Amino acid sequence: MTQLKKAKEGIITEEMREIARLEGIEPQQIRKGVEDGKIVIPFNPNHKGLKPCGIGNGLRTKVNANIGTSDKYPDSHPELVKAKAAIDAGADAIMDLSTGGDVKSIRKAIISEVNVPIGTVPIYEAGIIAQNKKGSIIEFTVDELFDIIEEHAEQGVDFLTVHCGLTLEAVERLRREGRITDIVSRGGAFITGWMLKNEKQNPLYEHFDRLLEIAEKYDVTLSLGDGLRPGCIADATDRAQIQELIILGELVQEALKQGVQVIVEGPGHVPLNEIQANVQLQKKICHGAPFYVLGPLVTDIAAGYDHIAAAIGGAIAAAAGADFLCYVTPAEHLGLPTEEDVKEGVIASRIAAHAADIVKGVTGAKEWDLKMAKARKGLDWEAQLKLAVDPKKAKKYRDVKNPSDVETCTMCGKLCAMDLIAKFIKNVD
Amino acid sequence: MTQLKKAKEGIITEEMREIARLEGIEPQQIRKGVEDGKIVIPFNPNHKGLKPCGIGNGLRTKVNANIGTSDKYPDSHPELVKAKAAIDAGADAIMDLSTGGDVKSIRKAIISEVNVPIGTVPIYEAGIIAQNKKGSIIEFTVDELFDIIEEHAEQGVDFLTVHCGLTLEAVERLRREGRITDIVSRGGAFITGWMLKNEKQNPLYEHFDRLLEIAEKYDVTLSLGDGLRPGCIADATDRAQIQELIILGELVQEALKQGVQVIVEGPGHVPLNEIQANVQLQKKICHGAPFYVLGPLVTDIAAGYDHIAAAIGGAIAAAAGADFLCYVTPAEHLGLPTEEDVKEGVIASRIAAHAADIVKGVTGAKEWDLKMAKARKGLDWEAQLKLAVDPKKAKKYRDVKNPSDVETCTMCGKLCAMDLIAKFIKNVD
Repeated sequence: MTQLKKAKEGIITEEMREIARLEGIEPQQIRKGVEDGKIVIPFNPNHKGLKPCGIGNGLRTKVNANIGTSDKYPDSHPELVKAKAAIDAGADAIMDLSTGGDVKSIRKAIISEVNVPIGTVPIYEAGIIAQNKKGSIIEFTVDELFDIIEEHAEQGVDFLTVHCGLTLEAVERLRREGRITDIVSRGGAFITGWMLKNEKQNPLYEHFDRLLEIAEKYDVTLSLGDGLRPGCIADATDRAQIQELIILGELVQEALKQGVQVIVEGPGHVPLNEIQANVQLQKKICHGAPFYVLGPLVTDIAAGYDHIAAAIGGAIAAAAGADFLCYVTPAEHLGLPTEEDVKEGVIASRIAAHAADIVKGVTGAKEWDLKMAKARKGLDWEAQLKLAVDPKKAKKYRDVKNPSDVETCTMCGKLCAMDLIAKFIKNVD
Repeated sequence: MTQLKKAKEGIITEEMREIARLEGIEPQQIRKGVEDGKIVIPFNPNHKGLKPCGIGNGLRTKVNANIGTSDKYPDSHPELVKAKAAIDAGADAIMDLSTGGDVKSIRKAIISEVNVPIGTVPIYEAGIIAQNKKGSIIEFTVDELFDIIEEHAEQGVDFLTVHCGLTLEAVERLRREGRITDIVSRGGAFITGWMLKNEKQNPLYEHFDRLLEIAEKYDVTLSLGDGLRPGCIADATDRAQIQELIILGELVQEALKQGVQVIVEGPGHVPLNEIQANVQLQKKICHGAPFYVLGPLVTDIAAGYDHIAAAIGGAIAAAAGADFLCYVTPAEHLGLPTEEDVKEGVIASRIAAHAADIVKGVTGAKEWDLKMAKARKGLDWEAQLKLAVDPKKAKKYRDVKNPSDVETCTMCGKLCAMDLIAKFIKNVD
C-alpha cells in the first residue's frame, strides 16, 4: 500500500513519523499533507537502506543533484563519487540521468550505495536501447517503454520523471506560438520525436493508467516532467508551457485518486519577475502538489556560473512556494559536471533553499541564522565555522587568510566594528 | 560647476552625452535624471582619465568592487592587482577601503591607475591616524576629519561614503530597539564611538553644510552611508535602520538644493521577502535618489559563499529598483579577499544586476539573452562562449569537458534535445 493510501486511511507510517522528527513538526501534519497530495514521501520499499525524506508544503525546501554518465563519459565510478560528494554537500535527493555505458548496472550501483531518494528518467533508457538496436532513439514500442519503467520501479527507484503532459495538443500549441529554443528537455524531445514519427498520442499520457498501476505497485512517486519548459528567457511562461501544465494538473488529480504520490516539475529559464506567477499558477492548477523547479535560471548568459543564476531563481521560487529545487552546476550548458562542480551546485541550491525557508517560516531556519549572528557578535570563530553552510570551505578561508593570533579577521583587523562597538558600549554604559 | 548644477541649467555635459551613448538612451533623459536627483555621474574632474559612468533610474544596474589593504596586509600591490581584476571582470566602480600601510599613497596609485569611478570612506583614515598618533581610533577632531575628506576630494575621489544619518537620535533608537549584532559598519562604529565618547552630535550631520561645500567644489558625489545597516537577518528593517534612512532622506533634499549629487547606501542582511519593501521605502523617503545596496545577503550562514547569498539579494533589490550593487566576495565574514575572490564576487553581482536589468527593461538587456538563446539553438559554440558573462571561464569549461569532435556537449551528447528537435521538426515539416 502506498504512503498516500495509508495516509488516506489515517495511518501514520514509520516514514511519516521519522520525517516529522527530522522536520520538527507533528506526525499528523505529515500524514495530512500526504493525504492532501501536498507532501510526498518518495520511498520505494525496494530501495534498501533508504532514509525517509518528505517533500512539500510546510517542510524544509529540498535539493536534488543530477549525476549520470553520457556517451562520451560512460564510466560509472566518477558518477558514484559525484553522488557521494553531492550528499556530503547536503543534497536531499539524487537523480541518475545516465545515458552512457551500462545504464542498468550503474543505476543498480547507485541505488545500492545511496541512501537518499533516487530519481530517474526511464525514457532515456528506452531511447538508448532503440538507438543501439535500431539506430534511432525513437524506435521503441509502448510496451518496451513501460517495461523499462517497471524495471526502474522494481530496482528501487523512488521517483520517476515522466513527461505525461506533452501531448499532441501541447505540441500543436508550441508550433502556433513559435519559440526561440523549441524543446530543451531531453525526455520532451524523445516523446515529441516519437509522436511526430508515429503520428500517435504520447504513450505516457494515453496509457497514464498503466503508469499509475506501476507507481501504485511499487509506491514510486511520479514526477510529472515539463517537456515544454522554456529553454531561454524569451520563451518563458508561454502558451505551450502553460498548456502542458494544465494537462499535468489533470493528471495530478487522477494520480491522487489512485493513491499514487505525485510531484510536478517546472521551469527552466524564467525572468525574475515571472517566477512568483509560475509558482502560484502551478500550485493552483495542480491543487497544491509539490513543485519541483529546475533552476529556474534568471538569465541565459551565465554559462560557467549557472549555479548562481539558478540560486537567484531557486530562492525566489522556493520563497513563493516551490518545494524542491533541482540544482544547476557551473558546468550547465557547457558539459558534464566534475565532482567540484557538483559540490558547488549543491551548496548554491542549499543557500537558495535556506534563504527561502527563512521567509517560509520553516522550523529551525531562522534559528540557524540567529545562532550564526550571535557567534559573529561574540567573535566565536569555532562556532561560526561550524554553523557555515560548508564548514570545510569556511575553515579553509579562515585558516589561509588569518594568522592564528588574529582575534577578529584580516578584512577589518583592529577596525572590526563588532569589536569596537562592544568596547564602546561597555565603556559608556 | 557640478553635473547637477549644469543639469539644472539645462546643459547636457560631455559626460551625459557619453553615458547616453553607452546606455543607448537619449542625452536629454540623462540630463533630466541628474536634474531630478535620480541619476548621478560620479565624475571628479581631478580624477584624470576617468570614463564617465551613470548610476540611477533607467540605466544599467552598476556593480562596485571593494578593494583595499588592512593592518595585516598593508601592501598596496595586491590591491592594485585586485582592482584591475575587478575591472576586467566587469566592475563599474571601485571602492578603496584601505586601512593598512600608507593609505594616502595607495589611494593616489589607485586613482591614477583606475579609469572607473573611485569611492572611499574618509573616516577610516581619520581613525587610523588617530589610532597611530593617539592610540585610539576616535581621537580625532572635527577639523581633522573634514581636512581628510577634502584631501580625498582634492586627490580625485569620485564618490565619498559619509555616515551622516547616524545621529545621537538614531543611536538612541538603536538602544531602545535592542539588536543582535548592533553596528557592523566600520564607519558607523567610528562615528558612534566618537559621539558616545565626546557626548556630541555626529559631525557629518551637524556640519553637513561643510560637507556640501567640499562636494560642490570638487563635484564629488556623496554616498550617504548606512551606519546602522542590519548585520544579520534578525536585525533587518528595524526601527534603528529606518530612523537613519529617514534622516538620510532629509539630507538628500539638502544636497540636491545645493547642487550636490547624492546616492544612498542600504542594507546589508535582509530576508528575501523584505527586500522589495526596503527598496520602495528608500525610493520614497529619499525622493528617488539612486540606491546603493551592500548585498543584501539573504542569509547569515553562507560564509565561504556569501557572493551567492548576495547575488540572490542583489537581483531582487535591483529588480525592485536598486541602482548600484556593492559586490560581496566568497571571503566575506572570513578575511580579506584574494584576486580570485574579487573576480568571483564581481561576476556574481553582474549576474544579479543583469537578471534585474532584464525585468527593469534596461536597453539591450533582453537582447543579450536572446542572442545567447539563438546561439544555443544553432549549436554555435563560438557565439555562446563570446556571449557568456565570463567568456574565459566558459571557454575553459568547454575545452576541458569536450573533445573537439563533439558538435553538441558532453552533458547530453547524441541525446541533445536542441539537436534532436531540430532534426525531428525538419524531418516532419
